[in-house]
Amino acid sequence: MTGKEEPGWLAIAGLGPGDDQLVTPEVSAALAEATDVVGYIPYVARVAPRPGLTLHPSDNRVELDRARAALEMAAIGKRVVVVSSGDPGVFAMASAVFEALEGREDWQALNIRVLPGITAMLAAAAAAGAPLGHDFCCINLSDNLKPWEVIETRLRHAARADFAMAFYNPRSASRPEGFLKALTTLREECGSDRLITFARAVSTPEQRLLTVTLGEATPEMADMRTVVIVGNSATRRVGRFVYSPRSAG
Amino acid sequence: MTGKEEPGWLAIAGLGPGDDQLVTPEVSAALAEATDVVGYIPYVARVAPRPGLTLHPSDNRVELDRARAALEMAAIGKRVVVVSSGDPGVFAMASAVFEALEGREDWQALNIRVLPGITAMLAAAAAAGAPLGHDFCCINLSDNLKPWEVIETRLRHAARADFAMAFYNPRSASRPEGFLKALTTLREECGSDRLITFARAVSTPEQRLLTVTLGEATPEMADMRTVVIVGNSATRRVGRFVYSPRSAG
Repeated sequence: MTGKEEPGWLAIAGLGPGDDQLVTPEVSAALAEATDVVGYIPYVARVAPRPGLTLHPSDNRVELDRARAALEMAAIGKRVVVVSSGDPGVFAMASAVFEALEGREDWQALNIRVLPGITAMLAAAAAAGAPLGHDFCCINLSDNLKPWEVIETRLRHAARADFAMAFYNPRSASRPEGFLKALTTLREECGSDRLITFARAVSTPEQRLLTVTLGEATPEMADMRTVVIVGNSATRRVGRFVYSPRSAG
Repeated sequence: MTGKEEPGWLAIAGLGPGDDQLVTPEVSAALAEATDVVGYIPYVARVAPRPGLTLHPSDNRVELDRARAALEMAAIGKRVVVVSSGDPGVFAMASAVFEALEGREDWQALNIRVLPGITAMLAAAAAAGAPLGHDFCCINLSDNLKPWEVIETRLRHAARADFAMAFYNPRSASRPEGFLKALTTLREECGSDRLITFARAVSTPEQRLLTVTLGEATPEMADMRTVVIVGNSATRRVGRFVYSPRSAG
């Protein structure tokens, strides 16, 4: 597996929510074979340095540049892993890499694989019980990449469909008002008694879980390390757990 | 970790979609410590027998009985793993275990953990590219546990929210007409050009991927081992991949 004669490849890999015990053997094997690891600084920091491996940490919000740099390296024979936290296909690097393939038939011919990971909502749901045990949806509340009106429309349809809901990126320092608007919309649609779980830094030593009602929820309960899960109309507590029953209607 | 003095525990664990390389180290460690493994026959068959481990395979559609049997064993000091394929919190055993805890304060006091896994839609999306790279929903199309009207309402709201959609249990031998109805509803709401991916037995030697348009899709393209992913209005092909761009609106 060494030498310039070997063909390059690109793996877009999910490191899971934080605990190394949640990294799949498939991802560990790709990292062990890689010559280069590319990603956002805190995710690359989770990869142990070793001889023969070059780490390329980069700032956030440069996803397309990062994808192109990774593809360039694979094209010249490197074995490149693009790392995301969670799952690379859920609000992470996989879509950025495929966007970078547009119009580039040379890159489209490369050996490109997506290696799934434990996305944050699954780890958060597991820590809380089983709030996603019935039909659900998953919404990125960041309005960096879409107008707020799209988010609001999705929240209302999700509530009327009686989906449980998982929210990524609920609240940033630069746009604190978005999550307050989301809570207001959800209270209008779902009422004040609906359960909402704030799961921060799940699977890490800083994990913190809080379940309250929508009436009790405040924007400060979330930050950018928090996944928020809103139950459906049947979601309930049993003992210290929160779960959505399997049946509905 | 032996002897009757040790307290029992219950872990509800996800084995991932099929490939052992997608089983997390956390789940492997729980299985290595277990005295008893409980689950549906084909999932228990994925656990290697060893001295000191009793396997309890059972038929499907007895989830609550299976959950109670597992809790009974944990209550008398056994170390019990309830196995699901994929993630235990997504249309699998976790909700059944929490349902079994209702009214049983003795069982609620037990050491119960949910160990997340790679759920089928994440593995299917990874194999196809990144069709779930933007907001999406996840619907169990089986009408065993809910009336068809609930499913149809959810499909229409999901389409109007412009969610990508992942469907579990799209088609059973006993209810083949449900998936045809779903395709008809989706064509009405999304038009004939929308991309739909059929991902069968993902990560196993029998894996088969097919992406067509809604106009080309037929019910026979799915069976009970298939996860179906319908793109949003922006989902597109690039090379051999299918992906949903990160931005919308």
